[in-house]
Amino acid sequence: MNNLMAVAEVIKKAQRPLLCGHVMPDGDSLGSVLALGLGLQRLGKEVTLVSSDPVPDLYHFLPGVETVIVGEVPEGDYDLLVAVDFSVPDRLGSALHAFVKNGLPVAVIDHHVNDHPFGHYNYVRTEAAATGEIIMDLLDLLQIDLNLDLAINLYTAIVTDTGSFRYENTTSETHAKTARLLECGVPVSRLSNYIFGEQPLVLLRLLEAALGTLEVSDCGQIAWMSISREMVQSAGASGQHIEGLINYPRKIKGVELAIVFRELDEQRVKVSFRSKYQVDVNLLAKKFGGGGHVRASGCTVEGPLEQARELVLKEVKEFFREGSDGRHP
Amino acid sequence: MNNLMAVAEVIKKAQRPLLCGHVMPDGDSLGSVLALGLGLQRLGKEVTLVSSDPVPDLYHFLPGVETVIVGEVPEGDYDLLVAVDFSVPDRLGSALHAFVKNGLPVAVIDHHVNDHPFGHYNYVRTEAAATGEIIMDLLDLLQIDLNLDLAINLYTAIVTDTGSFRYENTTSETHAKTARLLECGVPVSRLSNYIFGEQPLVLLRLLEAALGTLEVSDCGQIAWMSISREMVQSAGASGQHIEGLINYPRKIKGVELAIVFRELDEQRVKVSFRSKYQVDVNLLAKKFGGGGHVRASGCTVEGPLEQARELVLKEVKEFFREGSDGRHP
Repeated sequence: MNNLMAVAEVIKKAQRPLLCGHVMPDGDSLGSVLALGLGLQRLGKEVTLVSSDPVPDLYHFLPGVETVIVGEVPEGDYDLLVAVDFSVPDRLGSALHAFVKNGLPVAVIDHHVNDHPFGHYNYVRTEAAATGEIIMDLLDLLQIDLNLDLAINLYTAIVTDTGSFRYENTTSETHAKTARLLECGVPVSRLSNYIFGEQPLVLLRLLEAALGTLEVSDCGQIAWMSISREMVQSAGASGQHIEGLINYPRKIKGVELAIVFRELDEQRVKVSFRSKYQVDVNLLAKKFGGGGHVRASGCTVEGPLEQARELVLKEVKEFFREGSDGRHP
Repeated sequence: MNNLMAVAEVIKKAQRPLLCGHVMPDGDSLGSVLALGLGLQRLGKEVTLVSSDPVPDLYHFLPGVETVIVGEVPEGDYDLLVAVDFSVPDRLGSALHAFVKNGLPVAVIDHHVNDHPFGHYNYVRTEAAATGEIIMDLLDLLQIDLNLDLAINLYTAIVTDTGSFRYENTTSETHAKTARLLECGVPVSRLSNYIFGEQPLVLLRLLEAALGTLEVSDCGQIAWMSISREMVQSAGASGQHIEGLINYPRKIKGVELAIVFRELDEQRVKVSFRSKYQVDVNLLAKKFGGGGHVRASGCTVEGPLEQARELVLKEVKEFFREGSDGRHP
């Protein structure tokens, strides 16, 4: 049964629904829960919004975010749990498990691939770029009109899960729905600035220093940067500013494998790998006792920085040269 | 007279139209010219597409781009010049000036602020996020159906001029029109990679040098970078790599106004302005004989670089200080 109408019906009947997104909430999860929650309040329902994990600072601008209860579920005579943007019980978070175990009816609304969603009522639409798109249809079914607060939440859901309409999941319907949201007065550039736009000055100072170490292999397919503790310190930066820097070598035209060497202390160097299309960097990181995903991985090797770099690059070039098992770009 | 129907009529009557975008072509200028050009060819017209400046490598994927004639205008019995995405004769480029002087009728289609467009037939719609949006309406008036080639050009026009739907100019209509384009099968993620995903190595070399000149005002609201010809040369870069650099100062947290000073030659410095929320940079650029949009504008001032910077920054700080008429952030 994959029926949005049935989900709408059970939600319509509920008087005291409990709404939640998934653990480690993102823009789609939060925006979708908040839009639905604010909408159901307008129908006179007693809505409780919970999140197992804290709301990232980035999303503190979302209308209604102050009503989200974090980390626990208050006592209450709930008559329905609405699980939004996930469909496996693993992503419920511990506080909510007990309610499900005790037989609270569950309605699931999601866009992630899952043939066996865990709700009593389920609606999973994998073609939706964001769960926010489905929530818009649900609000229509419930005859809840959009307003600016709902639109900001739904816009955030869509813009984050599509990477600002750039990912493959973006469809004609995504844009048609976004057109409706903008009619409510969504302040596009302000939200874009909140979500994508702002960088601390220290990050640019660190970037400048990091770019000074950028090297590219003769073949043009491997690019790397090295970040010493001294560089981080004199830029006034910290660990959180280093994470995204690997995107700079990764984005270079023709580069397949990007590496960042980061000095942790005199003995240890953190090595991050990213590949674009072909190299299995999980396999590569495993050679140094690390791991991760096919396109993003990491490991920690012995320092000092220059020695670690030399060791890893030698191995990487060999890995490229082998290229016998589809790892060669 | 600001009448798209009249522009459509004169284009409909033309048999051998000459189409051009502005000097230093960008995604909107090229995508709009190509979409209109390919469309008019389908009506059986003998269309000639010219560009005063070379097409940046980035845009070599645009359908029909190989038909654009660069730097000169072939002899021909043209009966109309269609100027797309600009409305001041300065942005024609030298090769086209002669034709205008000799009395070739001119139709102008643009979205930049200009009360006195230079055409005999003009249509300027400043509410359009991109000239590509206007071209879509024009194609509708001319009863030219969209196809994938047209849609890719128009999508590129819109996505570049809105910064992937993030800038303030993005409207409900922008998304509604993009929804129509995606129905034609635009390969969103592939184009996003072309347009936003890959950077040539020389761009990062230039970025490093540019970041070395980054300064922020004491108030933290004005940030600027200076790009000399020597920097561009030693990075192995060219003009096309400079365009996006202003986003780095613009993105700094707390910065309202970003400026890039670019040395064109010993006498001239190109100054680009971007603002986030409040400063009207069109007004600001006008103080130096330039113009543009409220959040993005530019002008050319007398060099050398240091002198231009000093002059402009003095004026800018005064402009900030005045802040009497809503321009103060």
